[in-house]
Amino acid sequence: MDFLVLPAILLVISTVHAFQYTELVRYIDSHQEEYVEALRDWVAIESDSSNMLKRPDLHRMMEMVAQKLRPMGGNVELVDIGEQELPNGQTIALPKVVTAQFGNDPNKHTVCVYGHVDVQPAKLEDGWATDPYNLTDIKGNLYGRGASDNKAPVLAWIHAVEAYQALNMELPVNVKFVIEGMEETGSNGLDAMILAQRDTFFSDVDYIIISDCGWLSRRPALTYGTRGNCYFYAEVEGPKQDLHSGVYGGTVIEPMTDLIGILDTLISPSGKILIPGIREAVAPLSDEEWKMYQDIQFDLDNYKNKIGVNQLMYSNKVDLLAHMWRYPTVSIHGIEGAFSDPGTKTVIPAKVIAKFSIRQVPNMDPALVKKQVTDYLHLVFAKRKSPNKLKVTMVIGAKPWLADTQHPLYEAGKAAVKRVFDVDPDLIREGGTIPIARTFQDVTRKSIIMMPIGGFDDGLHSQNEKISRYNYIEGTKLFVAYLNEVSQIKKSGV
Amino acid sequence: MDFLVLPAILLVISTVHAFQYTELVRYIDSHQEEYVEALRDWVAIESDSSNMLKRPDLHRMMEMVAQKLRPMGGNVELVDIGEQELPNGQTIALPKVVTAQFGNDPNKHTVCVYGHVDVQPAKLEDGWATDPYNLTDIKGNLYGRGASDNKAPVLAWIHAVEAYQALNMELPVNVKFVIEGMEETGSNGLDAMILAQRDTFFSDVDYIIISDCGWLSRRPALTYGTRGNCYFYAEVEGPKQDLHSGVYGGTVIEPMTDLIGILDTLISPSGKILIPGIREAVAPLSDEEWKMYQDIQFDLDNYKNKIGVNQLMYSNKVDLLAHMWRYPTVSIHGIEGAFSDPGTKTVIPAKVIAKFSIRQVPNMDPALVKKQVTDYLHLVFAKRKSPNKLKVTMVIGAKPWLADTQHPLYEAGKAAVKRVFDVDPDLIREGGTIPIARTFQDVTRKSIIMMPIGGFDDGLHSQNEKISRYNYIEGTKLFVAYLNEVSQIKKSGV
Repeated sequence: MDFLVLPAILLVISTVHAFQYTELVRYIDSHQEEYVEALRDWVAIESDSSNMLKRPDLHRMMEMVAQKLRPMGGNVELVDIGEQELPNGQTIALPKVVTAQFGNDPNKHTVCVYGHVDVQPAKLEDGWATDPYNLTDIKGNLYGRGASDNKAPVLAWIHAVEAYQALNMELPVNVKFVIEGMEETGSNGLDAMILAQRDTFFSDVDYIIISDCGWLSRRPALTYGTRGNCYFYAEVEGPKQDLHSGVYGGTVIEPMTDLIGILDTLISPSGKILIPGIREAVAPLSDEEWKMYQDIQFDLDNYKNKIGVNQLMYSNKVDLLAHMWRYPTVSIHGIEGAFSDPGTKTVIPAKVIAKFSIRQVPNMDPALVKKQVTDYLHLVFAKRKSPNKLKVTMVIGAKPWLADTQHPLYEAGKAAVKRVFDVDPDLIREGGTIPIARTFQDVTRKSIIMMPIGGFDDGLHSQNEKISRYNYIEGTKLFVAYLNEVSQIKKSGV
Repeated sequence: MDFLVLPAILLVISTVHAFQYTELVRYIDSHQEEYVEALRDWVAIESDSSNMLKRPDLHRMMEMVAQKLRPMGGNVELVDIGEQELPNGQTIALPKVVTAQFGNDPNKHTVCVYGHVDVQPAKLEDGWATDPYNLTDIKGNLYGRGASDNKAPVLAWIHAVEAYQALNMELPVNVKFVIEGMEETGSNGLDAMILAQRDTFFSDVDYIIISDCGWLSRRPALTYGTRGNCYFYAEVEGPKQDLHSGVYGGTVIEPMTDLIGILDTLISPSGKILIPGIREAVAPLSDEEWKMYQDIQFDLDNYKNKIGVNQLMYSNKVDLLAHMWRYPTVSIHGIEGAFSDPGTKTVIPAKVIAKFSIRQVPNMDPALVKKQVTDYLHLVFAKRKSPNKLKVTMVIGAKPWLADTQHPLYEAGKAAVKRVFDVDPDLIREGGTIPIARTFQDVTRKSIIMMPIGGFDDGLHSQNEKISRYNYIEGTKLFVAYLNEVSQIKKSGV
């Protein structure tokens, strides 16, 4: 197609759908209070997938998603994905996956929207200004655990379909949903479910859309890559029970000292990963990448202000973005089994479990990383000549994901952003992990787009997580517009 | 006094009191169920002095001590010792100190029994087999937090006095009590109270008795030394709030990495303290000490079995006892502010506070140790060139204590043990800290004896703390006998 005639054709298409879009926008604007109330109901459920004690809440959450979808028609199913094995050998039922389908016109594209409704842990005592499970509107920001990650985006997609239905407008594409409840702990069970339904539910899916991320600035963005994550437990076990540090201190080799010793060998003060083989596996930074990063609008001072530090690991934009998106990193999250409360307990903890994770980038391989980390920790532990026992377990092993930004799916995304926000989106990557992106790509061989609606300062996984009313409602409009743009993609083989 | 005539004289004294002792023993044996019930009532109070939220329980505990003593007469007072300043700058009322006095005959010795009724933290989830605040009798062992440390010994002393009263026997010595509620966190406020009452309440005290420790084996013991304790908080603060490790990992210098890095410089894998100046201050081990340790009955295999390890820091008895009693040690207790729950939270904690303590021995000086640790940690932290902020605070600084085992007070102790248990006691030191022992010695200039009744396997500060019924009841008899023995000490200046 000649470049010069393209704008004219796009104009025609735009005109055809202009009326519908205005109607849809009006509908969305006039229903925003309902949308906020729906989010309030969802945030109220403590659907923490990492806490076994909250598993009943998680099951209830999945049921609520199904209840939301059922009145809209669309073959809603709660798919049993089996059980989860706990570290102690017991098993517990995984939350069911909700699938749904709206429309099955073979002449239309079929998109599959993926989202999750489980959340990270959150307690008021962690430093929340408001109850994390009571959605609180403060100056247009809706605070609550899971508000941005990922309950509001899931609801926005459902509301987008609902808006078409309410206005008796035909959906421009067939829309499928896959909503899971284990994303925050590695999408346990979903891989197998996708594989099992590759030739059934997923057989007619053309594109996969994920909105489980955020913008980089106030400018809307499309995301074309994510880092994976390998999450490790390093457990050091010594005495059969906790001991008084006065009575026993000096006579026993303390597990905590051993654990601190091996944790200190993971990463240097300047951020260099010390585990042999990790850095060597990383794809080198290309000149084009460097150029692309150089062109991205990104304010380092703003970033520093947002997180409240006066110095970052790197002082220039390209290095910083590269280490945020395309280099691995080690984070030590905490230690289970040691004394963690306020106060002054004089205890020698008998068994301590460090939690740390390594973000994965191309071309790292989680299976290899597991071996590299396990071998290395056992090696440095052996040098201590401690009688205590070390056990290293990799409990999450999620691969990174990378897309082609020239794909029609991304072109459609750019057009939708332009229509709703009247700007061009930033093309960005995501430092966080959407483990399932890679699985969708590997199993279905379909193209994926990540279309975030969360703000850059939503505080995912942190205290005072929020989504702004603006992002939530305009995001719903973006999804409505995007379905329309996707319908314009030339159907392959037609 | 000629050695050869001594047994005859002792025999005479023993005979004079033999009848009374038998009566007292009979009384104690027949009231043991009441004694257990009294312990049950006290253990039920979660008098955790390190947890500010439990302060009301602690106040109630002190009131219960006073209620126990009031019906016995004896000028019971609840002494206000002021307020405690919290790390955040706020203040909270300290638990009052209970004082009491039974008898004021100037022709008798006056002993002052010190004890405490606050406890270490304990939660069922920590691995207790029973509710830590519901005293549970299993095969003659009474399980509950504070059972051995120090509620049963305090009750045993009260019951010893009560037994004399109930039988209308004159107390052989005047008995005073000082019962506090802040021992587990460093006896905050008690030093000042002792100093203030040096010339009043303490003016006529001849001897101080402390029963806040345990035996070394199944053989009863007298304790002549304790280690002190300097308890530190090392706080590293970075971002203004917790961050998502995927989104921010690689761009921020993580406080947890810094904290692990500096903690790893405190102690070597073989237990060597790396803080300059600490080891240099320790009094050298004398030949006599070596000989004394060599003669103590102590079974290393039994000790290993008890704590469930197959290798100790030292493999010979003398080294092990020396490092348990008369060398300093560093224990890292845990980290506040990091992720410590079960599960897989992917968080970069914004502010983390390590808790560690260094046991003090002669001739260490807590004020100097505070400076040594603070300077050293700031030095190793500075080498990391981190933008995060380090704050080192010493929240407890308790000195060690050492007594003369040839003192008449100890000779009386040996005689009392011989009478009740028909064995000679081991003369031992205590690795743990009774901070106030040193203060009593420094302020009142009176002699102190530590007379434990707790078993060697009572699990102080650990899960499943207990005292055996045997130790509790026979311990009460020991105290009854000891009051009598002390009355035989020749009064100085008379």
